[in-house]
Amino acid sequence: MVDLVIFGTVALDSLETPFGKADNVLGGSASYASIAASFFSKPGILSIIGKDFPKEHLDFFNKRGIDTSGIIVGEKTFRWQGYYEYDMNEAKTLRTELNSLESYKVKVPESYKNVKYLFLGNMDPDLQLNVINSIKKPKLIVMDTMNFWIQNKKEQLFKTIKKADILVFNDGEARQLFNTPNLIKAANEALKLVSKAVIIKKGEHGALLFCDKKHFSAPSYPLENIKDPTGCGDSFGGALAGYLAKTKDLSEKNLRKAVVYGSVVASYNAEDFSVGMLKRITSKDLEKRYNELKEIREF
Amino acid sequence: MVDLVIFGTVALDSLETPFGKADNVLGGSASYASIAASFFSKPGILSIIGKDFPKEHLDFFNKRGIDTSGIIVGEKTFRWQGYYEYDMNEAKTLRTELNSLESYKVKVPESYKNVKYLFLGNMDPDLQLNVINSIKKPKLIVMDTMNFWIQNKKEQLFKTIKKADILVFNDGEARQLFNTPNLIKAANEALKLVSKAVIIKKGEHGALLFCDKKHFSAPSYPLENIKDPTGCGDSFGGALAGYLAKTKDLSEKNLRKAVVYGSVVASYNAEDFSVGMLKRITSKDLEKRYNELKEIREF
Repeated sequence: MVDLVIFGTVALDSLETPFGKADNVLGGSASYASIAASFFSKPGILSIIGKDFPKEHLDFFNKRGIDTSGIIVGEKTFRWQGYYEYDMNEAKTLRTELNSLESYKVKVPESYKNVKYLFLGNMDPDLQLNVINSIKKPKLIVMDTMNFWIQNKKEQLFKTIKKADILVFNDGEARQLFNTPNLIKAANEALKLVSKAVIIKKGEHGALLFCDKKHFSAPSYPLENIKDPTGCGDSFGGALAGYLAKTKDLSEKNLRKAVVYGSVVASYNAEDFSVGMLKRITSKDLEKRYNELKEIREF
Repeated sequence: MVDLVIFGTVALDSLETPFGKADNVLGGSASYASIAASFFSKPGILSIIGKDFPKEHLDFFNKRGIDTSGIIVGEKTFRWQGYYEYDMNEAKTLRTELNSLESYKVKVPESYKNVKYLFLGNMDPDLQLNVINSIKKPKLIVMDTMNFWIQNKKEQLFKTIKKADILVFNDGEARQLFNTPNLIKAANEALKLVSKAVIIKKGEHGALLFCDKKHFSAPSYPLENIKDPTGCGDSFGGALAGYLAKTKDLSEKNLRKAVVYGSVVASYNAEDFSVGMLKRITSKDLEKRYNELKEIREF
């Protein structure tokens, strides 16, 4: 039984970083998020692919216990081509082929409609809102977004954020959305819109949680070798949502733990191309790094 | 009895931030560092001023128990004029008048020569090396630097770093000095040069400590209103050195505490122009924020 619905893109990526390249590999916000969530819960993906989408990826999802009945098949899979420069802080897009995403009409399977936990990965905010309205009584809606929607659909984005319980975004997006360089100010503005919490992902600098008038700062895991940061934000959000769906505890204290598990999964994700590392690690690896992060922040 | 010698500049600053301006106010790495250190220990300043330097500042140093017998008087005080843009991440220099610094010959008073703790604030690395050679048997040398010396005196800078026990610098300087975007790599390179530890200051993102093959990440204190970040790095370093001079404990565990006290003092410093806030706060305020940082990082 699916306990977490993950909405987002399932893509084929071609990318290059200073440490190598990868062609037509599995990508997309829903792919990363659902694999990350599957360490904790039974996620189901809500997305669209094309006829060209390799069956091996669907088989892999299923093997991990990820439900794929919410993935519909259009003409051609969404494709992203990009690269990272030396500092790898920002993905540069060379080419985006929306393909089947262009005319995507969200169709939520009956078996997803009673699910209590919902993760809205990066996607058009209008579609994110459609999904929210299709789930009967969600207990928790965690929502992610991206600079593209802040630039191009700000009004719709705000409308969708107001329906979310937890907003997860990165530092650049927080500054851009609320037009301030100060992350604390941005978070306080965002808190006025959502019902529960605001989480700011800061990449190599960790993550911040704002909830119940409390402030939590999660350290990042020290990585000397980052191969490909694609999907780190998505796997952070997926792991966080998966952990909450598993524990069913929305206290501020448990949200802190969820943020740390998000950081742990994201740190592994950066160590190989595509979902390569997420495929290889086990829950035991997650526990190991979780405990290391406890040591790292102790004083 | 002076237990910590602080070498650096004593300056008169004129600056503007989006939140106001200040003219001819007390500035300089040794000013900030010594006031920060004086919460914990009995620092003495080693520096040069000019005949134009207001007596009130010297009186203030003395009132705080800061020894000023190492400050010599030249013609005119070093002056810096600059501004911060909207994001306040980087000081932009409009004008630097070296004045008496130009022909500064370091003269270490006899009473400083047996001191065990030495903090080298941002200054010409050749002069920093002179100071190191003038102190008889220092137990701990903490050294700070700045992008200017990385650009203009890299070779001399490396020579001086090799004499230091702890190197303290910011993230931009770490990347620049070791020519890598990865802070963990930069820290590992720096560790090959110093005897004890490397500390990377990351401003709003906290600070990292690398020591005894362990990694510590200190959270930053969440500030919604930053008035003037000038001297935050210097007060971080001064507080750290002052705490170590007081506790005389160089274990990795105690270095973590020193880093957190550094963060606490720096966070207050950003809340007003010049040393305004450092003048007003007490040890009780430091303890309060220190304990708040414990809460902020707990999971």
